[in-house]
Order: sequence, then C-alpha cells, then structure tokens
Amino acid sequence: MNDTFLRACRGEKTDYTPVWLMRQAGRYMKEYQEVRAKVDFLTLCKTPELAAKVTLQPIDILGVDAAILFSDILIAVEAMGMPLEFHDKKGPILGDPVRTKAGVDRLAIPDTEDSMPFVLETIRILRRELTVPLIGFSGAPWTLATYIIEGGSSKNFLHTKKMMYQNPGLFTALMEKITATVIEYLSAQIAAGAQAVQLFDSWAGILTPYDYEKTIFPHVKAAIKALKKYDVPVIYFVNDCAGLLDVVKKCGADVIGIDWRVDMARAAKKLGKKYSLQGNLDPLVLFAAKEHIEDRVKDILFKAEPARGHIFNLGHGILPETPVESAITMVEAVHRYGRND
Amino acid sequence: MNDTFLRACRGEKTDYTPVWLMRQAGRYMKEYQEVRAKVDFLTLCKTPELAAKVTLQPIDILGVDAAILFSDILIAVEAMGMPLEFHDKKGPILGDPVRTKAGVDRLAIPDTEDSMPFVLETIRILRRELTVPLIGFSGAPWTLATYIIEGGSSKNFLHTKKMMYQNPGLFTALMEKITATVIEYLSAQIAAGAQAVQLFDSWAGILTPYDYEKTIFPHVKAAIKALKKYDVPVIYFVNDCAGLLDVVKKCGADVIGIDWRVDMARAAKKLGKKYSLQGNLDPLVLFAAKEHIEDRVKDILFKAEPARGHIFNLGHGILPETPVESAITMVEAVHRYGRND
Repeated sequence: MNDTFLRACRGEKTDYTPVWLMRQAGRYMKEYQEVRAKVDFLTLCKTPELAAKVTLQPIDILGVDAAILFSDILIAVEAMGMPLEFHDKKGPILGDPVRTKAGVDRLAIPDTEDSMPFVLETIRILRRELTVPLIGFSGAPWTLATYIIEGGSSKNFLHTKKMMYQNPGLFTALMEKITATVIEYLSAQIAAGAQAVQLFDSWAGILTPYDYEKTIFPHVKAAIKALKKYDVPVIYFVNDCAGLLDVVKKCGADVIGIDWRVDMARAAKKLGKKYSLQGNLDPLVLFAAKEHIEDRVKDILFKAEPARGHIFNLGHGILPETPVESAITMVEAVHRYGRND
Repeated sequence: MNDTFLRACRGEKTDYTPVWLMRQAGRYMKEYQEVRAKVDFLTLCKTPELAAKVTLQPIDILGVDAAILFSDILIAVEAMGMPLEFHDKKGPILGDPVRTKAGVDRLAIPDTEDSMPFVLETIRILRRELTVPLIGFSGAPWTLATYIIEGGSSKNFLHTKKMMYQNPGLFTALMEKITATVIEYLSAQIAAGAQAVQLFDSWAGILTPYDYEKTIFPHVKAAIKALKKYDVPVIYFVNDCAGLLDVVKKCGADVIGIDWRVDMARAAKKLGKKYSLQGNLDPLVLFAAKEHIEDRVKDILFKAEPARGHIFNLGHGILPETPVESAITMVEAVHRYGRND
C-alpha cells in the first residue's frame, strides 16, 4: 500500500509529494467515456461495479497517489428526499426546491446503509482492489444548502441568500439537518473503508467573510469535529477561498484544499503550520504546453514548502476537454520535482 | 455641485461618506422599466436623450452622490468591429469570436467621436443636467478580452485561457489593441465631460495571482497610467479580488473598487494608505430586513475607517429583483452613519 497521501495529510515525512486530481475519474478519459456511453450518470453512480471501475481508471493511467470514490455530492440530497435529475447541458435539477418550514421539515436525515447502500458497496469493492488510499466525500453543509434551496445551480444564489437573510431561524434548521446528514454519510463511508474524507465547499466563495464566519462556518466546523473522532484525515476543500482564509484556519480539519485563485505562498504562510495543504493548479493550465505545465507545477511545489505537508492537486475539477497527456505531465512533474524530506 | 464623491476619490476630507451603486440605473426601478418597455437595451444605450434620462433617475430617487453613464462595456467592443446582440435570457452575444491572428488583425482601435458619438453626446447632456459628478467607464482590457475571445459570457473561460497559455504572443497583441481602445475611449469620455472614470475588471477573479500579475496587470496598469495625465480620478474595480490585493496595490489608480467577498478591514489594511476604497456590500444584503441592512452598512463603514477615503458602494451590480426601498435604506444609512472628518 502506497501511504504517501495519508502521511502528507497528517504532516508526516514523505519520500515525495503525493498528487491526485479532483474529478480524476471523468469525461476527459476515453476509458471513462466507454463506460458512460452505456449508462447515464446517475446509474453509473449507483452501480457499484461500474462506479468502482471508473474510480480505478485514473490510478494506473495517471499514476496518482489516491483514489476518490466516484459519486456526486447530490446523491445524499436525493436520499434526503429531493428528486434528482442530471441534464447534460443544464446540469443537476432537484425537484421541489426547499424554501419553507414545511420543505425543511419534509427532508430526512437518511441512514446511509438503507438509502445509499451502493456507495458503501462501491467503497468495499474499491478497498479490495486499490493499492493507494481511498478518499470518501460529501458536499459541505453550505454547498448542499445552495442546491437544496435553489433546486440546482445558480448565478446569484438569490433564494439561498434570501432565506439566510430573511429567515435565519429556518436557514439554521436546514443547515443543522444537512450537517447531521453529512456526518452520518461520511461516518458510514469511513466504516465501509474510506481512508480519508473530503468535504467539498464548492460555493463557499460566494459569501462575504462576515456571513461565512457567522452563519456557515459553525456548521462545517461541527461536521469536522464529529468526523475527527475517527482515525482518518479530514480534508476541507474551500472553493474561491482567498477572502476566507482567516476564518478557514480555525476549521480543525487535517488538510485544507484551496482553489487556484489564491497564491499558494500566501495560503502556506496563513495556514501551513496547523494544516497540510492541497492544491492548487488552475485546471486550465493543463491546456498549456508541457514545459509551461512543468514550470507551474514547480512554482506551486516551491510555494507550498513552508506548509507542514502538501498534497498536489488542481484548484478545481479537471475539465472534460483536457488532454490526458497533460494530466500525466502534471503528475510526473509533481513526482519528479516534489519535496523529499 | 456636490463634490463629496470626487473629494473622497482623492482622499480629501468630506462631510460624510459618499455613496453610489453599480448598475444604479436599471431594471429594479420602475421608472427605468417604463423607458425600457419602449426600446431594446442597445437602442437605449445608443439614444443620448434616453440614456441620459435613465442615468438621472437614481440620483433623486436614491439620493446618491455620483451618476454613472448608462451604457455597456461591450459597446466599445462592437465599435472594434464585432457584431453585438443582447438576449434577455442568454446575455450578450458577440459574433465571430476572435481566436486567430487574422481575428486580432481585423479588430479596429476605434475613434470614439466617429464610432460612438452617442456616448459623448450622452455625457454632454448629463453634464448640463447633473448636480453630482458623472462617472464614465470602460471594461478593463482583460475583461473585454474574455468577451472578445469567448464571444459572450463563459463558465470556464476555456478559449480565453487557452489563447493566453498556448499563444502568448497573439494574446499580448490582442491585449495591446484592447488597451489602446480603452485609453482612447476613456480619454474621449473625459474630454466630453466625465469627471471620473471607472475600469470594470469583472472577470479578474478567474485568474491565478500568477497569471494576473504577469500577463494581465501590465496592460491595466498602462491604461491607468495613460489616464492619470487627465485631472480626473481613476477607479479600478476588481471583481473577486481577494486573492489579488498584493498585485492590485501597485495599480496606480486613485480608487480601488472591491467586491463583497473580501473583508473591508483587510482591504483597508492592505490598500488604504495609497488608495481610497470603494465598496463593498453584498448586493444580496439588500434583500434583508431594514435593520440588518443598516447593521451591515455600519460594519463596512467602520472597517473602511483606516482607508484614506471611502466611497460606499455595493460589491457588484444591484440585482433586478431588489426592492428600491432597500437601496434607499442603504443610501440613507451611509449618509447617517458615515465618516465625518
């Protein structure tokens, strides 16, 4: 077992800098497209043999140091009771968006074994097959709340912020229900074999630091605290985090994942004593020439040096249009030029 | 003439904190909708009497301390030679996106008097009517480049970043042509009577600090330098700027406009000695109750105190769904609780 990733999460010495890519199992890879040609996205998520198969694809092809469960953050929202559909162009659609007390009351805190057994079965299959650690994941409470309230993606998050500002009591009740779901869901993933868990706060960056600290952060901090009782690293990925670092540094996770819009040197200075850092190449750099990709990898590796640990990653999910060779170039450059403690 | 806004731009003493709102002339106001019901958006921009009329509406209704020319940043791109259409749902569409040398070569550096006389005429009308200063504006070079290369709005800015990474020579040639256009366009607005100018870098925040500093910043800095020879304040609005402040602080403008995702106290500490600051209430706070709006206004006013000057504004354009009374509440709160040097 290659445990470099887990060691880096804990800030232990490693022989080299480990690397994986957000959305590393995905459309940019022809092997994935072959599987996906036969089933729709949700069926793929819910069929353990297939979900495990695509999870494994990037491990050998890219040579990454960790696998991440193939799934979607909205699977848990569907289990809470909202009908979920994926449209190739429009993205996810959740039926009957929650904007009232009755809506919040209707949501369940699902038992993972009962309502998402396929996720746990995928994890069990993967643990038998994998030679690198397996990361489980969930959306962070706030990010899930935006989907639950908007009913899908959004431009301005009008309904979500309206509820947050106009009905703080109802908003808190919703956040508490989601947080309980996140804790139960990730606890079950860990019990099934996930060796680390990542909370994706994909929409944290649309908040003022004021609202993030006061209204959102207590919930994600509570989730992290509950998960810390298990002996697996907790990674908190905060998208568009440049304005939130002073708050994020109090989260208590093992690893902070940062997006590409913040300088790694600033993040390392601000967070690197208490946390390992994960990130943060702009996914679009993978459209550059090989030499430029290598230069940018070296720049980030160098800037991350002051942090207690570094897991190289993109600053966001890899795009479907990305050339696979560029992802391989990135992984090889990280392994060649990374730290050697 | 109420010159509070201009004095605050220059960091001079003022009797109170001036305030205006990005997109203050717009759909949230029924008086605007009445005008817009009769003409389409582009016709409104290009008809001086009507553009002046809607520019004036918020001055009395809201009681703001500055007017901003009613227009659109893509007007100048159309004048460079790209066909422009606005669709109510899909936003702006620019025909024949520029992705090749031939495309860049085809773009003109327009003479404003020849190709956008309606903008200058609107300014001349407004200067006769207004009792507060008039702000002219342009898109910043990078933001205009994204529209020119993508042909409209974008999610990942794939084509723009592809050109930036794959063909830096061509990208620089395009940026130089746009920068020359911006300088000519704003110089003409100033000559016609604009008393301050704002550069909107609405898409600065999708860049890594690395690319922003190396590839984008030299052009906007050159534009600011060229405009500084006129005796009017230059405002540089940088959207999603939290990760870019260390670079932005070298821009040389009079005022830095910041979005809502950065804490005003941090911005004031980082930028406030050299610059006046403009911003930064989350436009969505205007959906909250009156007391909450007032509390948030006070919080920002307090945090901006260390800056040499403060112009209160939203952190982004006001949304069409916003209640007018909330905008009035905000303006009144700024005037009531703002600085009194």
